[in-house]
Amino acid sequence: MTTQQLTSEIRKKKSFLCVGLDIDLAKIPSSFLEEEDPIFEFNKAIIDATHDLAVAYKPNIAFYEAYGLKGWTALQKTIAYLNENYPEVFTIADAKRGDIGNTAAMYAKAFFEDMSFDSITVAPYMGKDSVEPFLSFENKHTILLALTSNNGAYDFQTKALDGKPLYHQVLETSKTYVNSEQLMYVVGATKAEYFTEIRAIVPNAFLLVPGVGAQGGSLEDVCKYGMAANVGLLVNSTRGIIYASKGEDYAEAARAEALKLQQQMERFL
Amino acid sequence: MTTQQLTSEIRKKKSFLCVGLDIDLAKIPSSFLEEEDPIFEFNKAIIDATHDLAVAYKPNIAFYEAYGLKGWTALQKTIAYLNENYPEVFTIADAKRGDIGNTAAMYAKAFFEDMSFDSITVAPYMGKDSVEPFLSFENKHTILLALTSNNGAYDFQTKALDGKPLYHQVLETSKTYVNSEQLMYVVGATKAEYFTEIRAIVPNAFLLVPGVGAQGGSLEDVCKYGMAANVGLLVNSTRGIIYASKGEDYAEAARAEALKLQQQMERFL
Repeated sequence: MTTQQLTSEIRKKKSFLCVGLDIDLAKIPSSFLEEEDPIFEFNKAIIDATHDLAVAYKPNIAFYEAYGLKGWTALQKTIAYLNENYPEVFTIADAKRGDIGNTAAMYAKAFFEDMSFDSITVAPYMGKDSVEPFLSFENKHTILLALTSNNGAYDFQTKALDGKPLYHQVLETSKTYVNSEQLMYVVGATKAEYFTEIRAIVPNAFLLVPGVGAQGGSLEDVCKYGMAANVGLLVNSTRGIIYASKGEDYAEAARAEALKLQQQMERFL
Repeated sequence: MTTQQLTSEIRKKKSFLCVGLDIDLAKIPSSFLEEEDPIFEFNKAIIDATHDLAVAYKPNIAFYEAYGLKGWTALQKTIAYLNENYPEVFTIADAKRGDIGNTAAMYAKAFFEDMSFDSITVAPYMGKDSVEPFLSFENKHTILLALTSNNGAYDFQTKALDGKPLYHQVLETSKTYVNSEQLMYVVGATKAEYFTEIRAIVPNAFLLVPGVGAQGGSLEDVCKYGMAANVGLLVNSTRGIIYASKGEDYAEAARAEALKLQQQMERFL
């Protein structure tokens, strides 16, 4: 998918909502546990209930790996289901990978080719040759961690590196990478005051924004300081949607929460 | 495994060799491709041929993920084979993970509990709350990326953050994390001149050192500047050993290369 197509979907659905699919078997309705593949069946139900309100889905790969082969199978089935039934949605493998040359190429192959994700999250610590292998895939996107929403972000990301915050350096340096137009960035909503500085460096790049809602970030501030001409925002919500209810009304509850967010987003578009 | 046990194994085997298991089906002897699980069978043969010369094995998780379910199965069988037959070796999941709180906990569970790896490599970019969940597992070790052996290391790691190179800050800050005595660090051998500075910050921590041999680092320099009282070094070799021959003598060739390295290491112990 191109970023133009993504912007066009955002305008069509009046939404820049990304739904996180971080499945914890202890938190889904117990009726699913009788299914052969509870993770996939739950994902399918959530996707079916929200696909017209969300433009992106983001499985967090850790949650699938934690269930071993079963988790991996559920992930493959989930991305295949999305690609087959809702090819218009943007898919994000939230893997936060980061390794050198040939290893990065192996990860890129696994997520972009074998599973056909549109994008993957990548950590910047190892620099250029850990990021560029991901950027060599046409119409695929690499979402680089810039400023994350957790407290640990203050350990290094906000400290001054050669006179500027490390996350500024990450943004600026990454712009020099080959095919940098395929970069997007993770920017936590809990730090809305930073969006102005970020937009000064990457005016049009898409920003994947976690931390709205449960983690305390304000959607209004994110839009005020972070929205670009092409919208350039994907705001993620996970627990608020997928765990809105543990009862049999889980799908309706998920849809209701997604609808609330979509309606708030519509005001800013 | 405790670091005391690891040092004791190093003294016993007169080796601090770590063998990387980065399996590429295009590079292993073609006879394996007829096996039901070529990756596992090849790993088993390499491990059997080198286990008395190496103290650690390090599968690079990307190479397994790239083969999907088959790769994941091969990884599980490989770690089970190591734990069952050679419980004295130190096992490293080279995963370079890095994510917040509950996600990090899921990764830790997958690698430390379900697969019983002794250690995992972790990226430091997201800070304290992305590292501490790994450190809460007793006798398990978190190997934090400090100074990597690739060119991209110069993008951020060696630049001054609040007046000191970022990798210094990573070493210093990580020492304040809860259970920091279970930390080890990745330090590339191609930058041997940095070992003196690193030892000034972490005098006794184990350093996992890639980049000797193929990547140009000198074992002598690594030992001269990096060795600690408890040895504190694991020097990794991958391609030089596992791909020493693509013929039917692959196991003898792997053993011969491992033996060469072990004999060089013995001189420095």
